[in-house]
Amino acid sequence: MITLSRSEIEALIDYPLAAKAIEAAYRAVSKGRVNLPPVGHIAFPEHQGDCHIKYGHIQGDAIFAIKVATGFAGNADRGLPSGNGMTLVLSAETGEAVALLHDEMVMTDIRTALGGAIASRELARADSKKVLIVGTGIQARRQVEAHIALIGSHLEFTVWGRNSSKAALVANELGEQASTTMVEDLEAACRAADIIVTTTAAISPIIQRTWISPGTHFTAVGADAPGKQELATELVAQADLLAADLAAQCLDHGEFAIPYRKGKLQAESVQDLGAILIAPHLGRSNASQITIADLTGLAAQDLAMTNLVLSAYAAKSTETRD
Amino acid sequence: MITLSRSEIEALIDYPLAAKAIEAAYRAVSKGRVNLPPVGHIAFPEHQGDCHIKYGHIQGDAIFAIKVATGFAGNADRGLPSGNGMTLVLSAETGEAVALLHDEMVMTDIRTALGGAIASRELARADSKKVLIVGTGIQARRQVEAHIALIGSHLEFTVWGRNSSKAALVANELGEQASTTMVEDLEAACRAADIIVTTTAAISPIIQRTWISPGTHFTAVGADAPGKQELATELVAQADLLAADLAAQCLDHGEFAIPYRKGKLQAESVQDLGAILIAPHLGRSNASQITIADLTGLAAQDLAMTNLVLSAYAAKSTETRD
Repeated sequence: MITLSRSEIEALIDYPLAAKAIEAAYRAVSKGRVNLPPVGHIAFPEHQGDCHIKYGHIQGDAIFAIKVATGFAGNADRGLPSGNGMTLVLSAETGEAVALLHDEMVMTDIRTALGGAIASRELARADSKKVLIVGTGIQARRQVEAHIALIGSHLEFTVWGRNSSKAALVANELGEQASTTMVEDLEAACRAADIIVTTTAAISPIIQRTWISPGTHFTAVGADAPGKQELATELVAQADLLAADLAAQCLDHGEFAIPYRKGKLQAESVQDLGAILIAPHLGRSNASQITIADLTGLAAQDLAMTNLVLSAYAAKSTETRD
Repeated sequence: MITLSRSEIEALIDYPLAAKAIEAAYRAVSKGRVNLPPVGHIAFPEHQGDCHIKYGHIQGDAIFAIKVATGFAGNADRGLPSGNGMTLVLSAETGEAVALLHDEMVMTDIRTALGGAIASRELARADSKKVLIVGTGIQARRQVEAHIALIGSHLEFTVWGRNSSKAALVANELGEQASTTMVEDLEAACRAADIIVTTTAAISPIIQRTWISPGTHFTAVGADAPGKQELATELVAQADLLAADLAAQCLDHGEFAIPYRKGKLQAESVQDLGAILIAPHLGRSNASQITIADLTGLAAQDLAMTNLVLSAYAAKSTETRD
C-alpha cells in the first residue's frame, strides 16, 4: 500500500496535467460515466466540526477513491488548520487497498482551483486580462496560481477582502507570480474586471447586479452549503449564461440555490461544465454576455486528482529505478 | 498517524476485553448515545464487487471511525480473499487523522463472533453445553473461539456444513481448543443442541421448526442482506423471544426480514440486545423458551473494537518504553 504525505503529494501535482484530468472527469460526469453515490456526513456539534465522505468510480478505472474531509471551526484556537482530509484508494477489481493519500486537503484545494480556472478559460472572453479575486483564504491564492497556469501569465490580478490587510498580504505573497494588487473599492474593482472569482464563505450577497460591466465572467466557488451566497440574486437571475460543475448540486446548495428557490431561475437554464467542454457552442456566444460558473466540487475531480497523483508517483518510481 | 497491519491488530485483541467493549456499545446504541449515519455503498458489478462504508461516533468519545469493507466474489479465482477492509480513525475534536487500522476484516470477523457469543451467553439456558455451529467459513471458526472465551471451555461443539469435508476440516482445526465434532445429520444435531449458531449465506431456510427442542437458543449471524434466510419462517414466528443487535436493521435485511415482510411477526416483538443487557429481565424467563438472536452488525461494534485496539496499542507502547 502506497502512503504519501501532503508534501509528497503536492510535489507530484502538475497544474496543466491535473487540469486535463479534471476536464476529462467533467466530461465523464456529463456522459453519465461516473458512479457518484450520495455524500456521507457526520457532525460533531460540540466541537463545531463535521466530516464529509465523498466517493465514486469512473467507469473503466482500475481504482476507486474514498475522500474523507473534515472541518472543525474550533481548530483555529488550537493553532490548527480547520480543514483536514485524506483519500483512500482501493482496487475496483479486487477491493484491495492501493494507497492512502494523506493530503490534508491540498488535493481538494488544487482541484477546486483548477475547476475554477477551467470554467474561466471556457467561459470568459478570449481577450480577458483583468481578474478580480474576491476573498483572502487558501482558494484566493490557489485560484491565482490556477488561472496563471491555465490561462497565462499575462493576467493581471486584483484582490479584495473584507479585511484589507489580509488582501494586502495575499497580493504581496502572489506578487512574484503575476501582477497582483490589493483593492479596497469592491464596486470599482468589479466594474474594471473581465473575470471575477469569488471564494468567500459569504451568507449574504457581496456583489451587486448594477456593478457589473457587459462581458464579465464570474467563477463562484465560495458557496458550497445551503445558505451561502456571494452574488446578488438579480445578478444570477439576469446573467446570460449559467454553468455549473453539476447543475443539480449547485441548485441544491451552491451559488444558484437561493435564486432557484426564490423562483428567479429555471433548472433547465443551467449547463453542466462537462457538456460545455464536449460542445463548446453551448458556452459564451458573444463578447457582451455576462456568464457565471458555479462550482461546488465533485468526487469525480477527486478521482481525477487521485489518478494523476498515483500516475506521477509510478512514473517517478520508475525514473528512480532507471 | 498510527498504522497497524492485520497481524499487529489481531495480536492486540483480547476476546473478553473486546466483549466488554462491544456490550458497552450495544448499551450505548439502546440509550441513543451513538450517532450512526446511513451506511454508504458503491457496487462494481463487472467484478461482482461492492464496498460498504460504515461510520459513526459514540457520544463523548475522543475519536470516530470510518470502516471501509469490500467484498469481491471473483477474488477466489485470483487466489485472494473475497473480503477486505480497513478502518480510518479520526479525532472527533479536531478532525485530524489518528490511525489507519488495515485489519483486512479481522476486526469485523471478531466483533461479529463476539456479538454472537454475547447473545448466546445472555439468552441461552445457563446449563447450556452443546453448541451446534451451522456453516464452515471464518465465522464458524470465530464463533467457536468467542463462545469458549465468553461462556467457557466446558462447551461441546458440533459442526455441520453442506459440504461434509469442510465441516470435518473446521472440527479438526478447532479440536485443540474444545471438543468439536463434525456431524452429517443436521436434524438430529439440531434436536440435540442447546445453542445453535447459524453462519451461512443461505437464501432459503435450512433449519425447520419441527427439529427444535424446547429451551433451544439460536444465534443467527449469516443473514446480512435482503433475501438471505437460515431459519424457517415458522420457527422465527413461533419463537418465544426475538432479540436483535438493532431491531430496525434486522427487520430490514436480517434473519427476521422475510418473516416480518410476510406478516408473521410484529416489529414490537423484537428486543434490542442492548436493552436486554441493560435490563436482563427482558431476556429468557424460563428453561423451555425458544430464543433467537439475529445479528446484522453495527458500526457501534466497529467503534468499540477500534477503541479497544488503540487502547491496547497505547498500553503496549507505554510498556515498551518502560
